[in-house]
Amino acid sequence: MHVVVPFAAADPKTRLESLLTPAERSRLARAMLADVVETVVETGHEVVIVSTTPLETTALDLEGHVLESISVEVDERSLSDAVNARLPGGDEREQDADIQNGERDAVAVVMADLALATTDALERLFGADGDVVVAPGRGGGTNALVVRHPEFRVDYHGASYLDHCETATAVDATLETLDSFRLGTDVDEPEDLVEVLVHGSASNRTLTCLRRLGFELERSSGRVGIARATPSSS
Amino acid sequence: MHVVVPFAAADPKTRLESLLTPAERSRLARAMLADVVETVVETGHEVVIVSTTPLETTALDLEGHVLESISVEVDERSLSDAVNARLPGGDEREQDADIQNGERDAVAVVMADLALATTDALERLFGADGDVVVAPGRGGGTNALVVRHPEFRVDYHGASYLDHCETATAVDATLETLDSFRLGTDVDEPEDLVEVLVHGSASNRTLTCLRRLGFELERSSGRVGIARATPSSS
Repeated sequence: MHVVVPFAAADPKTRLESLLTPAERSRLARAMLADVVETVVETGHEVVIVSTTPLETTALDLEGHVLESISVEVDERSLSDAVNARLPGGDEREQDADIQNGERDAVAVVMADLALATTDALERLFGADGDVVVAPGRGGGTNALVVRHPEFRVDYHGASYLDHCETATAVDATLETLDSFRLGTDVDEPEDLVEVLVHGSASNRTLTCLRRLGFELERSSGRVGIARATPSSS
Repeated sequence: MHVVVPFAAADPKTRLESLLTPAERSRLARAMLADVVETVVETGHEVVIVSTTPLETTALDLEGHVLESISVEVDERSLSDAVNARLPGGDEREQDADIQNGERDAVAVVMADLALATTDALERLFGADGDVVVAPGRGGGTNALVVRHPEFRVDYHGASYLDHCETATAVDATLETLDSFRLGTDVDEPEDLVEVLVHGSASNRTLTCLRRLGFELERSSGRVGIARATPSSS
């Protein structure tokens, strides 16, 4: 299965600008991308990072065997257009090896900010039946999906999960929803950082990045929040 | 497996007071309780609602076969104390039938505001291995858990998920985390209502309640929100 990871390389994560400088947001976004890409590769699939601007993968702190399984394609179009071109039946898929080999043509799209994605969660996603399989995010978003139907197209604007359900029905594609907290957690808003601090593993780059930036869980009050100490400079 | 559903009957859901009157919050809380209880019963388990005040289950809009599988125990203690008394080895479990019959003693605790709980998600929870199985909520909460270890005790204050991980280690109990968006969604804050409007099924009482109160999804902007029209009076 091809796995597409779209990445907005320029000025990422603007909804975190109350907490982080542009350079810090860029650093965090790349840490999340590295976590996502590595986790996908650990499931045995190749990754195509579709980036809005050129991207040096060697700067992503990935091991050699992971770097060998990823490639970068620069696409300046909107997120939806860039993804649609790479779905089954899309413009960029005409000479696809999967089709030539007669395999079932499937493409997965995994957002680059799913910092808590695990191989277990991704394997459930990739293995789920359905012409379209969606892992919804909070607020009606679409955090990850698998597309096996040549007429299904994405539209990430607004309540994309509901739009995708409707689109699947319109093209007569079966749709499954994947029930995953980890894939449902995209890191967009300040409160999402709490989830990384709570659930990130010791090897999670995103967690390490946040800690280096001085963030830690604030557990003294009844509710959990984040606190920021003096950030390190590196 | 015994399934405990704690219910704060008096003045529930105070974090929704910016949107709902006390009477409306009470109505919503009871709709959520009915959804949760019915879903648990559909998995084939008996439910004990542990309520802070007396509760008329016949007012919960449940079918007869569901009512037959639930009982109510009034317990004025704190949430943690009331739950701990009912865990394996707890004060209220000395004469437990499971122990007398030699079955493995297991108790599940499912929060009453998991309005999007499905039988699939609950069966994954109940069927997961581990002396303790936790379904975390947003912000480090513990939304549902299964306890099979006689020394494990809950503490719902603060970042309870992390506390429960530490407690499991301290009593030498194995701990599993259940990855579920649906069990991870407890309805506490105004933004949580969006999740019910997006993911609630046609038969979901909580969704019906919200719609009757005039809430609907606001999908015109880039992000999804909620809008409230004239509420109905019934």
